[in-house]
Amino acid sequence: MPAYATTMRIKFPVLALGLEVVTILLFALFAEYDDGKGHGHHPEPGNSTPPHAAPEDPMSLYPMFQDVHVMIFIGFGFLMTFLKRYGFSSVGGNLLLAAFGLQWGLLTQGFWHLTDGKIKINIFKIINADFSTATVLISFGAVLGKTSMVQLLIMTVLEIGIFAINEHLVANVFEANDVGASMIIHAFGAYFGLAVARVLYRPGLKNGHENDGSVYHSDLFAMIGTVFLWMFWPSFNSAIAEPGYTQLMAVINTYLSLAACVVSAYAISCLVEHKGKLDMVHIQNATLAGGVAVGTCADMNIGPFGAMLIGFVAGIISTLGFKYLSPILAAKLGIQDTCGVHNLHGMPGILGGLAGIVAVALGKKDGKAAMQAAALASSLGFALVGGVITGFIMKLPFWAQPPDQNCFDDSIYWEVPEEEEEHEESLTAEHYKNKAEV
Amino acid sequence: MPAYATTMRIKFPVLALGLEVVTILLFALFAEYDDGKGHGHHPEPGNSTPPHAAPEDPMSLYPMFQDVHVMIFIGFGFLMTFLKRYGFSSVGGNLLLAAFGLQWGLLTQGFWHLTDGKIKINIFKIINADFSTATVLISFGAVLGKTSMVQLLIMTVLEIGIFAINEHLVANVFEANDVGASMIIHAFGAYFGLAVARVLYRPGLKNGHENDGSVYHSDLFAMIGTVFLWMFWPSFNSAIAEPGYTQLMAVINTYLSLAACVVSAYAISCLVEHKGKLDMVHIQNATLAGGVAVGTCADMNIGPFGAMLIGFVAGIISTLGFKYLSPILAAKLGIQDTCGVHNLHGMPGILGGLAGIVAVALGKKDGKAAMQAAALASSLGFALVGGVITGFIMKLPFWAQPPDQNCFDDSIYWEVPEEEEEHEESLTAEHYKNKAEV
Amino acid sequence: MPAYATTMRIKFPVLALGLEVVTILLFALFAEYDDGKGHGHHPEPGNSTPPHAAPEDPMSLYPMFQDVHVMIFIGFGFLMTFLKRYGFSSVGGNLLLAAFGLQWGLLTQGFWHLTDGKIKINIFKIINADFSTATVLISFGAVLGKTSMVQLLIMTVLEIGIFAINEHLVANVFEANDVGASMIIHAFGAYFGLAVARVLYRPGLKNGHENDGSVYHSDLFAMIGTVFLWMFWPSFNSAIAEPGYTQLMAVINTYLSLAACVVSAYAISCLVEHKGKLDMVHIQNATLAGGVAVGTCADMNIGPFGAMLIGFVAGIISTLGFKYLSPILAAKLGIQDTCGVHNLHGMPGILGGLAGIVAVALGKKDGKAAMQAAALASSLGFALVGGVITGFIMKLPFWAQPPDQNCFDDSIYWEVPEEEEEHEESLTAEHYKNKAEV
Repeated sequence: MPAYATTMRIKFPVLALGLEVVTILLFALFAEYDDGKGHGHHPEPGNSTPPHAAPEDPMSLYPMFQDVHVMIFIGFGFLMTFLKRYGFSSVGGNLLLAAFGLQWGLLTQGFWHLTDGKIKINIFKIINADFSTATVLISFGAVLGKTSMVQLLIMTVLEIGIFAINEHLVANVFEANDVGASMIIHAFGAYFGLAVARVLYRPGLKNGHENDGSVYHSDLFAMIGTVFLWMFWPSFNSAIAEPGYTQLMAVINTYLSLAACVVSAYAISCLVEHKGKLDMVHIQNATLAGGVAVGTCADMNIGPFGAMLIGFVAGIISTLGFKYLSPILAAKLGIQDTCGVHNLHGMPGILGGLAGIVAVALGKKDGKAAMQAAALASSLGFALVGGVITGFIMKLPFWAQPPDQNCFDDSIYWEVPEEEEEHEESLTAEHYKNKAEV
Repeated sequence: MPAYATTMRIKFPVLALGLEVVTILLFALFAEYDDGKGHGHHPEPGNSTPPHAAPEDPMSLYPMFQDVHVMIFIGFGFLMTFLKRYGFSSVGGNLLLAAFGLQWGLLTQGFWHLTDGKIKINIFKIINADFSTATVLISFGAVLGKTSMVQLLIMTVLEIGIFAINEHLVANVFEANDVGASMIIHAFGAYFGLAVARVLYRPGLKNGHENDGSVYHSDLFAMIGTVFLWMFWPSFNSAIAEPGYTQLMAVINTYLSLAACVVSAYAISCLVEHKGKLDMVHIQNATLAGGVAVGTCADMNIGPFGAMLIGFVAGIISTLGFKYLSPILAAKLGIQDTCGVHNLHGMPGILGGLAGIVAVALGKKDGKAAMQAAALASSLGFALVGGVITGFIMKLPFWAQPPDQNCFDDSIYWEVPEEEEEHEESLTAEHYKNKAEV
Repeated sequence: MPAYATTMRIKFPVLALGLEVVTILLFALFAEYDDGKGHGHHPEPGNSTPPHAAPEDPMSLYPMFQDVHVMIFIGFGFLMTFLKRYGFSSVGGNLLLAAFGLQWGLLTQGFWHLTDGKIKINIFKIINADFSTATVLISFGAVLGKTSMVQLLIMTVLEIGIFAINEHLVANVFEANDVGASMIIHAFGAYFGLAVARVLYRPGLKNGHENDGSVYHSDLFAMIGTVFLWMFWPSFNSAIAEPGYTQLMAVINTYLSLAACVVSAYAISCLVEHKGKLDMVHIQNATLAGGVAVGTCADMNIGPFGAMLIGFVAGIISTLGFKYLSPILAAKLGIQDTCGVHNLHGMPGILGGLAGIVAVALGKKDGKAAMQAAALASSLGFALVGGVITGFIMKLPFWAQPPDQNCFDDSIYWEVPEEEEEHEESLTAEHYKNKAEV
């Protein structure tokens, strides 16, 4: 593709400002503060079944919201800074996509739940808006380094729209349980992103790219993301659970699942690596699979032991996925999954959906289990079809996509400071070159 | 200035220990725990009008307090680590100034609101104490890299004292609304710092300084500050709002204003930069202007749409300020504003004050709008006059200020570890120099 | 020791998976969710005296829990990343030990407080589980860089077991007050770790190690840990305090103690260092000593002034300890304390215990003061004896311990990315070497 296509100078501002102006107009027409009137008549948007009334104190969910907020903006943002020269795009792109996405998510989710023709904004709704952006940030991980911000904004608009449809179907039509969103966020976001990545397949990168890797300090930045995601995941899985002991159960299940997952991820990482060394890619990602996998049944009475078992298995599957499956997906299926979202969100998300089916089948009537299965199928179906369509739109040749040689490199879209050391080094080299040649 | 003046060995410990001992004595005389008795009789210090009674649970504001605490210590601290060799001074100086400042703020604010001759400490008061330090941290940004910790401690003492006077005037005399402190913290802190910077003008730096810039990883450290400020700003603007739906409104307005601000800041950054690249300086700072600008009217019924409009405009103004106005201020007015606080806190703070006047004028009686205007004028007046006086005191030639060539360099005040690479490189250079010369 | 002993390939996975499987089985047998029934009959495990009933809302402590969680995983984890080439082991090892430790702590603490033969898990219990891991993380600091993960897992199992015995003794037999755990966590963890470090003494490191130091950016990563610990310490010291005004008092005392401690630590650091420069080691650690030292009496009516005095003294003692005592301990007693935990947790922990004795003696009956003294003696005794025994077990020659020359180096246990710059540099060097030799 010709080099001039890569500048975002006009395309990006026009698209971003245009989207924002339209969004503000839609808010002017449809959005209001929730004043606490009319509660109980219209069920809240959400993933828990049965829907529950909003709590009386309008701020009671606020600490939970802030935990989720940290996961979205610090957690996802820094997790992706592991690449050596793509940190600005990772944490900066994450901020842009999530900031726009949450506005868009408020609208697309809100349109399914109008009260007197209006979207009544409250803490519950902004938690769900933050949730909706998580799908995009997961998909972002699959295509990280190989897309422009123009393409990513388009993906944000489409993916959140499709998410809102599937979420409505799962929560309100199937009335399936997915309190921690293993299916509707994690599996959905992962397979959507993998479908996009497949469509955007770059043969030129099949032998790798020199910038598609980490340096020492970029791996430490990524650990900031990992640890904040890990710590606040109990809030993610319990934020919209039924208040009281159900919410407590969601917290405890997630806390224990994640703890067990860390141990199995470390153990397997050491076992499968040459010389028994731990691999930062596994530690940064597979330690979180327990949070994903326990999501669907976090608020069910699976027992502390059951939660730990789910996390333990998720840590193993995820680590093995990074080691053995990702190379196969890239080489055989043309799916270049930069962050390995298939291992962190895809397989553990499906595991979570399956665990939910089993837990519901053991605990309730069979019809409910069928609805859980329908929810999983729906989430995967919308993700794959939506991802393929979105991928083809993103592939149109005028969205400033980077050439292969500029992938994984901030400097194509960002002013990047010159490194003093490098500068000095090249001076030095020049100096001694001259010396040597004299 | 002679080189020996720069050592802090005696001056700094004497000043710091002296200030702390005096502070502890004042606490012994005047400070008590709030035991919950006497509430309702004495209005709380605060910026909202009318003053509200403290909530019944003495810990109910604690999660809000912790969010604000993170903004002060992580947010402001890491935001300033963008300079390549000034990270220790940024995050370390921030910790010192804020830790001393919050004690000093408890006293200077508390003296206006004694209960039986005592300052009764509660969560509300420590939130306000943290707030008072924000003014100093904003001013610190204007003079970053060009001042010693001795000078900065003096600035802390004076600025927080002057802040407490203006805050009392605005909240209790004018009874103006400034719940998120656009005027009394952001505009005040910015113009105070700019006045100090003007007095401390260094002609020797007018052509720049090699250390007055970032490196790749220092920009990522700064993003930790940016994102934590961004995420918790809804708490900053709502912490002392009327509990219940008013507080919810303050949260939603700030959340939406910041989201819209991110999109406009990115768009304008791309538009004004050569080759359409994004500039980290804009992303680190201008994305936050929406939180500043919506501060005054965060708890007013401006509509979600109104909040987004304020954020959208703030993002544009702030980015344009960095690009076009800061160079003019430095070249023509001799205001060397290291962090660009004029663009993040100054102009958006005034925008917030003006938005507050308009919102009050549209919603209430005209007399109230005049009081809002008086609050804005008072904040700017105290800032400029206080900043000039403080600047002249800080300019006295015995406060260990750094010579021009040592500006923006931690090593003048900190033990800085030798860099292995640099060390090796110079050895290498030496080695090959010898080789080459043989 | 022979080089082949250092691989963890089989030992680590077998030990980790084995421990996790046993843990899951024990949870299956003994752990249940707390369903809110039976409260009041069985006192909660905890350090405050008298024990109080659980609050009615099962989630009311959740924000406190999350603050403590951040201290454990981000705070301790990043505080130890100051070493130039040991960041993966620090933050990664911290995650592993704490994730396994919290499960183990739930069991070992829970066995002392069974309800109908079961451990009923609630937020109070997971806060205490997180607390139990802090002892291990403190001890980890003493032996950082000189132990394998196999050794550290063994230490985790033993130390948390011994902690649970001492904690039961202090809280339920002596009924001593230690709400912020100066004695049972900080002093215990420090002296346990120092005893282990003494047993594992490495004469080969007595002249230092080239990797036993920081680089510029590793010191900034460590400040992330410092600041998060500093900010959330009020939650650590108040999380299990009596709700209401007692909890408020614990927050205020810790907030003020830490603030005063920062000022004295900075002042003394500047005073004792050559040329009056600040030392990052002091700033990263001694600024936190005020949180440790005020722990025991945080919930007592010591007055804001009393809390500040404790913090002020702690900051001085801790900084002087780093400067003068640590070198003596290493040279004369063979205690190589990598992170200086004696200065941050050891001495300030004893100071806290002593302050508690004084505060109780002044405020209550003498018998109570004797119990406080017994609690301090018990904590130190269990720590030293337990640490020595644990040290000898860890010294057995088949736990994959690193040879001296590989200490403080991630690459023995982790896949470490090659640094681009270094790589290029060596290429360059090679290149010019060839040039020069032609």
